[in-house]
Amino acid sequence: MTLINENYLHLEESYLFSEINQKIEEYRKENPKANIISMGIGDVTRPLPKAVIEAFHNAVDEMAHKETFKGYGPEQGYPFLREAIIENDYKPRGVKLTLQEVFISDGAKCDTANIQEIFSKDNKVAITDPVYPVYVESNVMAGRGGPQDKKGQYNGIIYLPCTAENNFQPPLPEEKADLIYLCYPNNPTGTSLTKDQLKEWVDYARDNNSIILFDGAYEAYIQEKNIPHSIYEIEGALEVAIEFRSFSKTAGFTGTRCAYTIVPEELEAEDSQGRKHPLNRLWNRRQTTKFNGVSYPVQVAAAATYTKEGQKEIKKSIKYYMENARIIRENLKDTGLEYYGGVNAPYIWIKTPNMSSWQFFDKLLEEAQVVGTPGTGFGPSGEGYFRLTAFNTRKNTKEAMERIKKIEF
Amino acid sequence: MTLINENYLHLEESYLFSEINQKIEEYRKENPKANIISMGIGDVTRPLPKAVIEAFHNAVDEMAHKETFKGYGPEQGYPFLREAIIENDYKPRGVKLTLQEVFISDGAKCDTANIQEIFSKDNKVAITDPVYPVYVESNVMAGRGGPQDKKGQYNGIIYLPCTAENNFQPPLPEEKADLIYLCYPNNPTGTSLTKDQLKEWVDYARDNNSIILFDGAYEAYIQEKNIPHSIYEIEGALEVAIEFRSFSKTAGFTGTRCAYTIVPEELEAEDSQGRKHPLNRLWNRRQTTKFNGVSYPVQVAAAATYTKEGQKEIKKSIKYYMENARIIRENLKDTGLEYYGGVNAPYIWIKTPNMSSWQFFDKLLEEAQVVGTPGTGFGPSGEGYFRLTAFNTRKNTKEAMERIKKIEF
Repeated sequence: MTLINENYLHLEESYLFSEINQKIEEYRKENPKANIISMGIGDVTRPLPKAVIEAFHNAVDEMAHKETFKGYGPEQGYPFLREAIIENDYKPRGVKLTLQEVFISDGAKCDTANIQEIFSKDNKVAITDPVYPVYVESNVMAGRGGPQDKKGQYNGIIYLPCTAENNFQPPLPEEKADLIYLCYPNNPTGTSLTKDQLKEWVDYARDNNSIILFDGAYEAYIQEKNIPHSIYEIEGALEVAIEFRSFSKTAGFTGTRCAYTIVPEELEAEDSQGRKHPLNRLWNRRQTTKFNGVSYPVQVAAAATYTKEGQKEIKKSIKYYMENARIIRENLKDTGLEYYGGVNAPYIWIKTPNMSSWQFFDKLLEEAQVVGTPGTGFGPSGEGYFRLTAFNTRKNTKEAMERIKKIEF
Repeated sequence: MTLINENYLHLEESYLFSEINQKIEEYRKENPKANIISMGIGDVTRPLPKAVIEAFHNAVDEMAHKETFKGYGPEQGYPFLREAIIENDYKPRGVKLTLQEVFISDGAKCDTANIQEIFSKDNKVAITDPVYPVYVESNVMAGRGGPQDKKGQYNGIIYLPCTAENNFQPPLPEEKADLIYLCYPNNPTGTSLTKDQLKEWVDYARDNNSIILFDGAYEAYIQEKNIPHSIYEIEGALEVAIEFRSFSKTAGFTGTRCAYTIVPEELEAEDSQGRKHPLNRLWNRRQTTKFNGVSYPVQVAAAATYTKEGQKEIKKSIKYYMENARIIRENLKDTGLEYYGGVNAPYIWIKTPNMSSWQFFDKLLEEAQVVGTPGTGFGPSGEGYFRLTAFNTRKNTKEAMERIKKIEF
């Protein structure tokens, strides 16, 4: 008899978005004329930059002629894109990388989910809470989670609660952690870590021989000077961290699919005999065995984000979203609500006043016809919080905030 | 201390293609004017069909305007593509599938590598030999392989040798197998299974509660009537088989990246308490957690392969490659060499006459300046065989065969 991977049975089915949709539908039935504005969407809405579209078209045309047609490419990605990443995203920040430290993929979701495969099942995993669910669930699937307790925490995982009480700064784990997932600027809280704050983590990892899995998907939204764009800006991080980056939120690639992961050559972990192994080699083996590279036209399109014209358009879009974030923050000032984030990230994290995340959801829907995301969807420590995003249009964002301001909390 | 996944240490580094390239380079150094023809390439060479290029361009244009821009799509793929697959690839062959049984991905390599994740580590895996190395290595990485023996076989895996002695028909396993990988038409042997032959496997799986992982990547090359295009043409297969298909070899998508996997709703496996679980739900959970869908323009391009114009062009390319295969076979008749395949697949599998796979490689390179792939690259039972492919140009294929005919074997 063929047996299933029973770790899957520990996973909780996520009903978050279906529950949200169901509540919206019910509301619509009773209020068919309501103009509902979604501030829950975690997806970009502005089109791809012109420079990207042009390059994309040119690459598609290459596929139309046998002289320029591209079959299988390198699993790690084409050198032209990996070079552009090194030259534009790292070199100007004083981070030196080689071509073979850069791995192109079709998404940071895949990479952050797959990275745990190269590590032993016995490693202890620490994860900030609330968090992007993929980090937790990929480890539960691999057997590092075990069953859930009553609080909704998997008992094999070390949770690092990030709440208003600790100013959303993850506490260093009390128990020794081998693998630590950090995402900064953070989804869902919209908060960030300064260089000094991130340095504490790099130091922890160096002292404890831990590895940091650093998700920098929202790097492009950073506005303040003391916020690191890459973990490798912190001294010694090349020996303890893997970094995930994406074109999704940076350049509107959520539907186009391109991302990359940095695995430094000096990064090592041990086998049970205490012998050290470079993780770059292991990830390379993983990717060459289980992945066949990103679509060639998509890689060409991604490379075009680094052109002068591409950069100009990307910055314009980021500015647009961050102006929405500013508008949300400014208006929230008048409501008396406590809120966080929205300065270096497109997310604003509201503390729900004397009510649960879901009660706040209902109140906003009923009294302002505005939809957001209950914090509980991101983990147990998300209870009592609520996420608004800056990805809607300017007009809708303004309208939503006008309505929210009229609510009595 | 962070520990690595030690199963990776069992993997043998594949030096096959670097060894081939090194030998070619050495030969070139000594014979700088040699016109070397590669018949080793397992990649398509003809451009994407015009209908596909047109659709691809249109979808890229959609990404340029906010009204038609696409962000995150469904992880399982857009319904328009899944419907086209059901209507074109299955319905005409009498196979009824629902939308949720079809999962779009960026490659059959990923899917055939990832599928083992939803199964218990304790399942016994059977694999034909020689074989596409991904099936073996993804299981070794997950801990189902264990160390290799002197023959180069992983001792946790059941090998099913396919050689001239059994006419390349995999023998039913003597030991009970839970997961069975079958690829037909076959890479690398180029041979195929008739409906009756495949039925034996479906019956075996039904009798033994096994699951067949059926790779149909070369389906489009089938020319003979009694060869099944889908395993689901065999009665009862929907209850025992997962099928992998790809646009790569069918429509020239090796560099564009699109594939799909069918997980029937009636397919089940057990947990250790004997409770049954639908595998469709598990794979859906795996894909929604670890994958974010295929690039939208690529999905639109893939759907265009099903248009009348697209089908016409695809068939023309397949015909071109299969005429190359015919030319290879016809010419091999005059050499006295034993050979197989090339009738329903773009691969021709030569039995090397009283020499090893590598000796034959050297002889062909030195005496005909033709490069192929030594059979040992595909597993222990590939020793004594050699693969030629039909993916080169007509001119090169003819020239290569003229040269091979002049060799004395």
